Amino acid sequence: MEPLIDGEMAKSKNIIKNICVFCGSRSGNSENFKLKTEQLSKEMTKRGYGLVYGGGNVGLMGSISHGVADNGGNVRGIIPASLSQKEISGTTVGHLEVTSDMHSRKKIMYEGSDAIIALPGGLGTFDELFESLTWIQLGIHSKPVGILNIDGYYTHLIEFLKHCAQSGFVDQHFIDAIVISDDPVSLLDQMETKTPPQPFIKWVKPEQL
Amino acid sequence: MEPLIDGEMAKSKNIIKNICVFCGSRSGNSENFKLKTEQLSKEMTKRGYGLVYGGGNVGLMGSISHGVADNGGNVRGIIPASLSQKEISGTTVGHLEVTSDMHSRKKIMYEGSDAIIALPGGLGTFDELFESLTWIQLGIHSKPVGILNIDGYYTHLIEFLKHCAQSGFVDQHFIDAIVISDDPVSLLDQMETKTPPQPFIKWVKPEQL
Ligand SMILES: [Mg+2]
Repeated sequence: MEPLIDGEMAKSKNIIKNICVFCGSRSGNSENFKLKTEQLSKEMTKRGYGLVYGGGNVGLMGSISHGVADNGGNVRGIIPASLSQKEISGTTVGHLEVTSDMHSRKKIMYEGSDAIIALPGGLGTFDELFESLTWIQLGIHSKPVGILNIDGYYTHLIEFLKHCAQSGFVDQHFIDAIVISDDPVSLLDQMETKTPPQPFIKWVKPEQL
Repeated sequence: MEPLIDGEMAKSKNIIKNICVFCGSRSGNSENFKLKTEQLSKEMTKRGYGLVYGGGNVGLMGSISHGVADNGGNVRGIIPASLSQKEISGTTVGHLEVTSDMHSRKKIMYEGSDAIIALPGGLGTFDELFESLTWIQLGIHSKPVGILNIDGYYTHLIEFLKHCAQSGFVDQHFIDAIVISDDPVSLLDQMETKTPPQPFIKWVKPEQL
């Protein structure tokens, strides 16, 4: 991140109101996963960003949603009825919407947000992340996508994506457009200012998802 | 793979009739991607397996579908109308079904197959692979999932998944259950005999996808 001149706010190029966060329903085995997620929630709220997320309150889903709500930010959770017993324990914060199926959850999360961040998580998180990246490639959106690489969690995946581009299966510019940082402040700074991925052709319309 | 005694056929534990193959609409920049894909198509047909795939005829999608059809196997392609111009050039082989949206494609491919193989591909292939793995974790299916690791294409991703399990975000047994090989014969042998991933709880029903 470039230092700001005289503490002046950096000019945002990308208009962000709500950020969709994909993350685990577990917290992982290092305290850093939870701590950095809480830092992100503080930083999001400070900048006036609302949270759109999977609606659970266990694991990092709990950390991000409670963090944003505790700091006075807006929280919108979207959960399929089938997963409410798995991903919710006790009461959730913010506004919770229950969908009838898994696919509706992803569509609503995507439609309700202006940027996407992946935190550490499991197979479901990777499904969500790759679906978002695929949708960029198909011309459905050009929202900034960021990865909060806490404790190098995503480093092997980033190596993999570079290898895919080198092997000729993915266009390098889609990989380059992903914002990657282990620091919440730098991640949001870059997501506000970096040119988001530009699809060449709009293959698929949102109603064709 | 264990050597077979007196050339006797290995006992299949997993009943496979049709294999869903996820792969790129490109061929990558090594001839091996195409060659090994063609080897897989021959081996699938030899064992009487039909192909269910994304319906395109460019890149590895073309190699796998033409390979199976040329060897006399059954080919069923499922493509969303929106992608037919992107992924089809000229005539396709086998039976082609056109869906109105992206999600229906995945559901039909999943429902119509007894096992899943990922070949090298791009962001869309990873979305499909992780969606299939997520569905196992949610108790929707326990179909064998294999990765044909041509030229080590998926090696960084496999490292990443091991790291995710070590970090406490994914159960190790879901990763262990994925069959990985760079050899089509060994891949199919293992997929026929290895115990597929066992979900503990059926969180989501197929109609709730
Ligand atoms: Mg997906």
